[in-house]
Amino acid sequence: MSWATYSLGLDYGTNSVRAVVVSCADGRTVGTHVFDYPSGERGVILDTGDPHLARQNPADHVEGLRVATAGALAEAAADSGFSRDQIVGIGVDTTGSTPIPIDARCRPLAFDSKWRANPAAHAWLWKDHTAAAEAATITEVARKHAPEYLAPIGGTYSSEWFWSKVWHCLNVAPDVFEAAATWVELADFIPAVLGGVSDPRTIFRCVCAAGHKAMYSSAWGGLPSEDFLARLDPRLAELRGRLYDEAHPPHLPAGRLSPEWADQLGLRAGIPVAMGGFDAHQGAVGAGVAPGTLVKIIGTSTCDITVAPTSEPLGNVPGICGIVDGSVMTGYYGIEAGQSAVGDLLHWWVDSVCEGDDTLHGRLSDEAARQRPGASGLLALDWNNGNRTVLVDPRLTGLILGQTLQTSRAEVYRALIESTAFGARVIVERLAECGVPIDRIVCCGGIAARNDLFMQIYADVLGRPMLLAGSTQTPALGAAISAAVAAGADAGGHSTFEEAQVRMTSLRDERFDPDPGAQAVYDELFAMYRELHDSFGGVAGAEADFPSLMKRLLVLRERTAGKAAG
Amino acid sequence: MSWATYSLGLDYGTNSVRAVVVSCADGRTVGTHVFDYPSGERGVILDTGDPHLARQNPADHVEGLRVATAGALAEAAADSGFSRDQIVGIGVDTTGSTPIPIDARCRPLAFDSKWRANPAAHAWLWKDHTAAAEAATITEVARKHAPEYLAPIGGTYSSEWFWSKVWHCLNVAPDVFEAAATWVELADFIPAVLGGVSDPRTIFRCVCAAGHKAMYSSAWGGLPSEDFLARLDPRLAELRGRLYDEAHPPHLPAGRLSPEWADQLGLRAGIPVAMGGFDAHQGAVGAGVAPGTLVKIIGTSTCDITVAPTSEPLGNVPGICGIVDGSVMTGYYGIEAGQSAVGDLLHWWVDSVCEGDDTLHGRLSDEAARQRPGASGLLALDWNNGNRTVLVDPRLTGLILGQTLQTSRAEVYRALIESTAFGARVIVERLAECGVPIDRIVCCGGIAARNDLFMQIYADVLGRPMLLAGSTQTPALGAAISAAVAAGADAGGHSTFEEAQVRMTSLRDERFDPDPGAQAVYDELFAMYRELHDSFGGVAGAEADFPSLMKRLLVLRERTAGKAAG
Repeated sequence: MSWATYSLGLDYGTNSVRAVVVSCADGRTVGTHVFDYPSGERGVILDTGDPHLARQNPADHVEGLRVATAGALAEAAADSGFSRDQIVGIGVDTTGSTPIPIDARCRPLAFDSKWRANPAAHAWLWKDHTAAAEAATITEVARKHAPEYLAPIGGTYSSEWFWSKVWHCLNVAPDVFEAAATWVELADFIPAVLGGVSDPRTIFRCVCAAGHKAMYSSAWGGLPSEDFLARLDPRLAELRGRLYDEAHPPHLPAGRLSPEWADQLGLRAGIPVAMGGFDAHQGAVGAGVAPGTLVKIIGTSTCDITVAPTSEPLGNVPGICGIVDGSVMTGYYGIEAGQSAVGDLLHWWVDSVCEGDDTLHGRLSDEAARQRPGASGLLALDWNNGNRTVLVDPRLTGLILGQTLQTSRAEVYRALIESTAFGARVIVERLAECGVPIDRIVCCGGIAARNDLFMQIYADVLGRPMLLAGSTQTPALGAAISAAVAAGADAGGHSTFEEAQVRMTSLRDERFDPDPGAQAVYDELFAMYRELHDSFGGVAGAEADFPSLMKRLLVLRERTAGKAAG
Repeated sequence: MSWATYSLGLDYGTNSVRAVVVSCADGRTVGTHVFDYPSGERGVILDTGDPHLARQNPADHVEGLRVATAGALAEAAADSGFSRDQIVGIGVDTTGSTPIPIDARCRPLAFDSKWRANPAAHAWLWKDHTAAAEAATITEVARKHAPEYLAPIGGTYSSEWFWSKVWHCLNVAPDVFEAAATWVELADFIPAVLGGVSDPRTIFRCVCAAGHKAMYSSAWGGLPSEDFLARLDPRLAELRGRLYDEAHPPHLPAGRLSPEWADQLGLRAGIPVAMGGFDAHQGAVGAGVAPGTLVKIIGTSTCDITVAPTSEPLGNVPGICGIVDGSVMTGYYGIEAGQSAVGDLLHWWVDSVCEGDDTLHGRLSDEAARQRPGASGLLALDWNNGNRTVLVDPRLTGLILGQTLQTSRAEVYRALIESTAFGARVIVERLAECGVPIDRIVCCGGIAARNDLFMQIYADVLGRPMLLAGSTQTPALGAAISAAVAAGADAGGHSTFEEAQVRMTSLRDERFDPDPGAQAVYDELFAMYRELHDSFGGVAGAEADFPSLMKRLLVLRERTAGKAAG
């Protein structure tokens, strides 16, 4: 191509939507704009009577589409040589599962004055936990009648996922359920809006949302069977016919930009709109995910994404949340794992226990950085918010072991970081056992970028180099990459995800390599973590010698406390 | 008796000595004075190079005898009807084991300019831990060759005790060891000073120090055999002949006030000086200890004392620190147990973790008092400073279990109080199993007097009324009671400890009775504490189902959090 091309990425988060304009040649961002959702509490509709309820207003999503895009384009206009006509495609990533009930013209029910005040008619945000009872029943029924549905999603169906939420709506707001022509994930809704889709049957559904959240697989012909759904509720079986038969991989366009939206955004009508996807999955693309590379999106919790080529057979990986063909990049299984509390665990210690301000993280990290691995005699389980991977048990709780009267808050802070690193290692080892070896780890997220101690502990515990994604907005970059792939090489985009990643993603120069001495100590500590993990986590056949474990920690403490700092 | 009589009690603590003048008729204190030891750090000689070293200057002890007594007598003089001639006896309690090397004239070596600068020539304060290696060897040799020596002292010989310290002196300061004519406990030294004893062979030794700290028992003819000591070091066997053959029960006088000291103190020469004893033991007497009554002295750690009549056979109680005939009151076995960290555990949380000031204890207690038993989902092991009774393992460490992202510092504070109450219950249950039932508990110490939440939790966990001693200075009162008993009824004292206790001790009106609802919840929590205790503590045959325990805590949490506050 002789002329410069750009793509537009839209990243729908929990509190805001971000638009970026990115160069297809080198991934450089030339324009960005964030629109904060105006509804509810920072964009989240809450219910003071029910702490589990979390919804979003679809009007915020549509308004954000306009405002964020206009802002990003205005900023890009300052870049020499940029013009709106050079944008070759639009990509979208969103939170998920965030399903929306829509009417027969593809309009969210919440747009109708009849339903506007009803939270059930809005978008059911990923972190809505009202459907716990439905999730438990789905898991129970599936275990008995269709265990194959649970195998690729870790063995337990979550209250955060599609069917739990839709069924809960049926149970608590049957009028909304009856009024909905169908339900659509936010990740599919935005591309449908941009494509001017007005018939629910023609909405393209992404395999990312379908496979990870709705028990969709081509292995059993799509969504769960009518028989299965009828065991939950006959009206869910009836809904199945108004959903979709097929979900699509991410390299295909979901549609073409409609003249109306082309007008509104000031872009060329007809440019491709990429298949939507979830933020973590597209973020992994933007961070350079590949076979052997695990992308960790480290925030309040951690989401792990890697891929494995579909050319080789891959069984289920017990305890892994999801393995879905094409959910990240076409031609690969997308593999998703996660830890329920990482940043949140450190925030719990700093905010709730120490009652410190944000600067305390830095001070505790500085002090903890002077401690040697093993020298505190502490060992913790990182389960203050349950365990997602590999135990899939949200009810598990935290544990801190080995404290004396001299134990300091900085020692506990370090032990909590270590506990999350041990949790990360359990995931990496489980992947390797199941034929998905991991050679290197690329991190995204604020903790990774800001906290050297955190990164070094992870390198030492995991025994692998820890790298940092070059972009600080990997989900938006991933959406822009999807757009470039949807456009294709002939239109100034790229022909494959791999090719687009080579051109559009980067790593920071900074990297963290394992220190062999620290790694050896952490190998010993990890063996003890495994004993606690398996015993308290209920892993069958687990046996631990707890009095010995307490003493072994002390022996390690004495040995390591005397050593010179690495 | 038609005239009023008084006795003088001297309480030698870690940082100061207190003198009290007490009415023999009703225990009323008419004069008190505290002398702060001038040497070292608040009376404790430290070594910057060795954190385990803690000594006291015997000159402080003698100076304190004069100053504290003079001050107490001066204050008593203001009381109508009091005169110094009405003092019928002197009693002494001290810390222990606090042995002092003395010369052939019964003078501490430290009084000699040759030794004054040598810490080994001073008093080896109870909390000196330099002799850990010697203690371990004594335990090992006794287990092999003389297990009977360990049976009444809990199965493990401590670095805080007589033989460990004397042997450590021999190892690190052999010149001091060689120069010593004999070694004497501070509890025996002060009565010897008052009695004008100048021949080491005539010092009366109390059964309290001998039995609890020096492996003395009439069952094997006194101190450990020469054969046994020779296995440690032949020079210890040689020392045995310069110690004592017999130790004496507490009702006997240790001597009579010498003319010189009568002059110095302004008291009548010839009044009896009671046998010395340890602070906890005499404190128990001052708190009204009796069969079925456990006295808890609750401070940084807790010391538990009870008695059982020697008229009935009593076997060893496994894990109990000491069972010694006559160590508390003549005619009773003195039984001592203890918890290594109680106040210290709460101070660790408030000072080291929360970095709060002293007012934080009150604020956390207030908040914790609004929580219902079981509702936090937390369970802790109170082992931040090891476990004294019943596991006798100073290396054990703490554990906190059940935390979530919502867990507050006040919830942990309450869980730590509860953990010490569970530890207290283990002791009470062990006593009951071995034929020493406990019906009621009398508490002394600042925490007991100041913290209602603490007392109520103990009542609920122990299922027994918690009472408070009437005196805030029970050790000094106990010493004064010993003095009254040594004087005898004819001289205006009392003929027995029991009679003296009836007249001279009291309880506060305030008491804490178990709440049946809370008690039922704590019975369930205690069963889980036992599982953690036995598994992590290495109790043979212990089996716990940890995943189930984690979940049972949550079930209890849900059940109790919903209940109305008791």
